[in-house]
Amino acid sequence: MNYIGVDLGGTNISVGLVNEKGKVLERLCVPTLIERGNAAVIEDIKSLCEKLIAASKDKIKSIGIGTPGLVNRTKGEVVLASNLKFENINIKEELGSFAGIDIYVENDANCAAFAEYIFGAAKGHKNSITITLGTGVGGGVIINGKIFTGSFFGGTEIGHMAIVVNGEECTCGRRGCWEAYASATALIRDTRGVAARYPNSAIFNKVGGDIKQIDAKLAFETADEGDEKMIEIIEKYHKYLAVGIANLINIFEPEIVVIGGGISSRGNKLIKPVAAHVDKMVFGGNKTKLAVAKLGNDAGIIGAAMLCKE
Amino acid sequence: MNYIGVDLGGTNISVGLVNEKGKVLERLCVPTLIERGNAAVIEDIKSLCEKLIAASKDKIKSIGIGTPGLVNRTKGEVVLASNLKFENINIKEELGSFAGIDIYVENDANCAAFAEYIFGAAKGHKNSITITLGTGVGGGVIINGKIFTGSFFGGTEIGHMAIVVNGEECTCGRRGCWEAYASATALIRDTRGVAARYPNSAIFNKVGGDIKQIDAKLAFETADEGDEKMIEIIEKYHKYLAVGIANLINIFEPEIVVIGGGISSRGNKLIKPVAAHVDKMVFGGNKTKLAVAKLGNDAGIIGAAMLCKE
Repeated sequence: MNYIGVDLGGTNISVGLVNEKGKVLERLCVPTLIERGNAAVIEDIKSLCEKLIAASKDKIKSIGIGTPGLVNRTKGEVVLASNLKFENINIKEELGSFAGIDIYVENDANCAAFAEYIFGAAKGHKNSITITLGTGVGGGVIINGKIFTGSFFGGTEIGHMAIVVNGEECTCGRRGCWEAYASATALIRDTRGVAARYPNSAIFNKVGGDIKQIDAKLAFETADEGDEKMIEIIEKYHKYLAVGIANLINIFEPEIVVIGGGISSRGNKLIKPVAAHVDKMVFGGNKTKLAVAKLGNDAGIIGAAMLCKE
Repeated sequence: MNYIGVDLGGTNISVGLVNEKGKVLERLCVPTLIERGNAAVIEDIKSLCEKLIAASKDKIKSIGIGTPGLVNRTKGEVVLASNLKFENINIKEELGSFAGIDIYVENDANCAAFAEYIFGAAKGHKNSITITLGTGVGGGVIINGKIFTGSFFGGTEIGHMAIVVNGEECTCGRRGCWEAYASATALIRDTRGVAARYPNSAIFNKVGGDIKQIDAKLAFETADEGDEKMIEIIEKYHKYLAVGIANLINIFEPEIVVIGGGISSRGNKLIKPVAAHVDKMVFGGNKTKLAVAKLGNDAGIIGAAMLCKE
């Protein structure tokens, strides 16, 4: 038996044929091109799924779709996904029927968390949280082996937990959200700030003064090379990342917190300093493990494919 | 059928005979006197329960004990309760057997939350959070009608969620915990600060300069009378209380958040301004209700008595 997982993003639609063991056997990808409207996007999803169904040697059990935004999983509807310009779009209905194949729709961060629980870094841990550090800070919470969604499908917006009242501006319009400190975007903002303030700094010189070229990778790299200003920025980043993780542990006390997103490729260079902060911050002693994600960019596809197993 | 609930506190042991409808039919109370040691405290619980069993016209179904601290509910053991000086004390075993009566042990904030769910302000809402504003900020989370405890019985330490990195000192040794802003203790600290800084202030005059007399009730009262300095303090208190509640909604998205503890007796004078802040702070629009607790000081006894129904 095989499974199809769809990772619907603002930039690409990635679709994968996944086997029982979570291996992606085949994958297809097309640009989302949101400006075409949601009907064209859903039409593409449909035709990609049909191609994979035709390509699969084994029977397809189900199709799962992971999408950004607020998802009514019961109805299979995207209630609101601003970056897709989807509002009250019932993907499940619009896709129509594939004979004998069940369709599931879920938030993409929840799919990634479910994938890490089933096949990845959180395997064997019925209570886990997977956070994704990227443009924002996303999160999925698994409680007792199930995706936790809150009462109205809008829970686990962990990136918008305030950690500094009146702090840094967040894209949501508030100030002081965790996302405004722990996202890759926040790290890039602070690093560009250093470059702008210190035109003799290592980071400024690396990009020849073209500050917009600075990304998270360069920020870490420059700190790794021993630049004091960047070491300070990275230490601050680790600390604020830890504050939010410690809050989540104080609240959920999961068995494991998994960190995903591009930044997690740093592995122990990220986990060790963050875990040291977290251990000092958790009330009554920390028993929760911290680890980097294992499934990388495939987590979305794999988690969506496995939704039927939830 | 009747039930016995025990509210074991640092000051008093309160025991109640509770009927099927959550009514406390009879209650007994003795001072805890922790310095006697845990065996004497447990002996008192036992003898109070025996008195209520004898007094009950109906059969007793179960005894539930609510205690501060970290509780291993599976074993019936208090893992650690600093203010009781209990460490690895198995209350269930120490109590011995009461013929045909089951014994349950649970954290007291969880008992209060369960009581508000079964008979109080959260009745009918399978996902609810009850927070208690007192010396600290305690909380109990009900998910799908069950008490949520985390993986190692130490979850929902919501008072120790950091909301201001490097902020006010907390009793836990960290800085910036929600408790350091939203507890009655925090309000009293800030109010005494005003009195100390302004010897001509209304609050200073009310206590004849004896600042230690200032309590939360007086703080609210003076603001209600129109004193500008105290209005400012209360507005700040409401805002920081709202920050933590909004964080919990962004994370759990319960159907209702219930506020208990002495401060909740203000009713709408508390709920209205706090809800106005919360509505502005929740990501993607707030759907969660906010209400004051209904069961007051009885919540602990009632919730403990009803643990067998969980």
